[in-house]
Amino acid sequence: MMTLDIARRVIAAAEAEAARIGQPMNIAVVCGGGSLVSHIRMDGAWMGSVQIAIDKAWTSRAFDISTKELAELSQPGKDFYGIHASNGGRVMIFAGGIPLKSGEKVIGAIGVSGGVGKQDQAVAEAGAAAL
Amino acid sequence: MMTLDIARRVIAAAEAEAARIGQPMNIAVVCGGGSLVSHIRMDGAWMGSVQIAIDKAWTSRAFDISTKELAELSQPGKDFYGIHASNGGRVMIFAGGIPLKSGEKVIGAIGVSGGVGKQDQAVAEAGAAAL
Amino acid sequence: MMTLDIARRVIAAAEAEAARIGQPMNIAVVCGGGSLVSHIRMDGAWMGSVQIAIDKAWTSRAFDISTKELAELSQPGKDFYGIHASNGGRVMIFAGGIPLKSGEKVIGAIGVSGGVGKQDQAVAEAGAAAL
Amino acid sequence: MMTLDIARRVIAAAEAEAARIGQPMNIAVVCGGGSLVSHIRMDGAWMGSVQIAIDKAWTSRAFDISTKELAELSQPGKDFYGIHASNGGRVMIFAGGIPLKSGEKVIGAIGVSGGVGKQDQAVAEAGAAAL
Repeated sequence: MMTLDIARRVIAAAEAEAARIGQPMNIAVVCGGGSLVSHIRMDGAWMGSVQIAIDKAWTSRAFDISTKELAELSQPGKDFYGIHASNGGRVMIFAGGIPLKSGEKVIGAIGVSGGVGKQDQAVAEAGAAAL
Repeated sequence: MMTLDIARRVIAAAEAEAARIGQPMNIAVVCGGGSLVSHIRMDGAWMGSVQIAIDKAWTSRAFDISTKELAELSQPGKDFYGIHASNGGRVMIFAGGIPLKSGEKVIGAIGVSGGVGKQDQAVAEAGAAAL
Repeated sequence: MMTLDIARRVIAAAEAEAARIGQPMNIAVVCGGGSLVSHIRMDGAWMGSVQIAIDKAWTSRAFDISTKELAELSQPGKDFYGIHASNGGRVMIFAGGIPLKSGEKVIGAIGVSGGVGKQDQAVAEAGAAAL
Repeated sequence: MMTLDIARRVIAAAEAEAARIGQPMNIAVVCGGGSLVSHIRMDGAWMGSVQIAIDKAWTSRAFDISTKELAELSQPGKDFYGIHASNGGRVMIFAGGIPLKSGEKVIGAIGVSGGVGKQDQAVAEAGAAAL
């Protein structure tokens, strides 16, 4: 089960990776119910990325999939094209959201926003790896 | 100016007070522009209080007033009655939001939600005192 | 018919009154269709009052009534109690919104937010008087 | 720091360019926190462009990028495809929004809407140049 301690450990690992690559980020962790457990905006990170980080985490838990994979399935002509407009616009379809698993069970998700897709993804992976 | 370091110090002080009184809380800090800088949900705190804590912080910065004071001004028959429906419903009119000041300048705000008004207020005050 | 020139004249008169009483304000003018024609936020005016000023103007035109009068009709037990939750929360029920008339015809409205009700109302009246 | 004086100077320059090319525009300036400082709708400008101008300005500040550049990054298959649905639909991904800088520091943004992309961009650039 997700706890604040776990969320903090995940965020700290992600934050360290963001610092290492020199790109300030918004980093969020949600619980198994999709609700926010913790969030940080690093100094200099985009204001517009606050909600995106939170919503990437929500999206990853809502569909138990990384937003990077969902992005591929949501391009024009693909099966999930249009899904970004569902759920009140909370569904994020670009890289940076990853489910957090305990064994096979998804216990939450991390969402990262603040750089290009590759950076967001790398930082989210670093966070997820700390679980 | 608000930084993540300041936000963490404020949240840590609030969290300690919440632990002391035995009431798990959502605690949020926003910057001078009203955007979220950091948030924690303590284990066992209400899911429905996540947005309330964030919005209490936003409200306190948006009007440079504690939500406790705003609550008094927003009762039926008072000057600001109805303000809770403005700004897309983000205006919180119950205790727990306090502006954070550096000298006379408001640099952000803290918002706390998870208990009764008295508890939320006490925890927010403990956080603000750490600035 | 409302024009940008008229809106600017109305706003200038309201701004002068706000400066005279020493209370920074958000001041907005909408056209006969309820859409924004012009807005200013004076230095130091509340961030949270931007949308309230715009929505007070909209409300005054939407019902062709001052928001001060609407406030009285919207208290608990009165005919319009609950109207503040209608129209997506755009209906403002506290003083500061006044219809702008050319003869008998309503051509728009002014909305003012930034002080207590009496101040908002005085500034809105000064603006309306310039028409 | 953004002030109403600066916003008016920026808007006046943009308005002059809009007049010169004969295309009525909505022109908005936001502060460093993303909140509206001033807005004008020129006579004959589209009603539907009021919010777009304000949101273009917000977007440019939220991500410290012109909406023209963001547009390129948000096409199908690109890194930010889908971002237009984030943040409650406030993210505008077509030309006309530009960050306003004081030295290296972003102090706000201008948003222009009312013509085709090329026109909106030209008018926004004229406004930004007046800073």
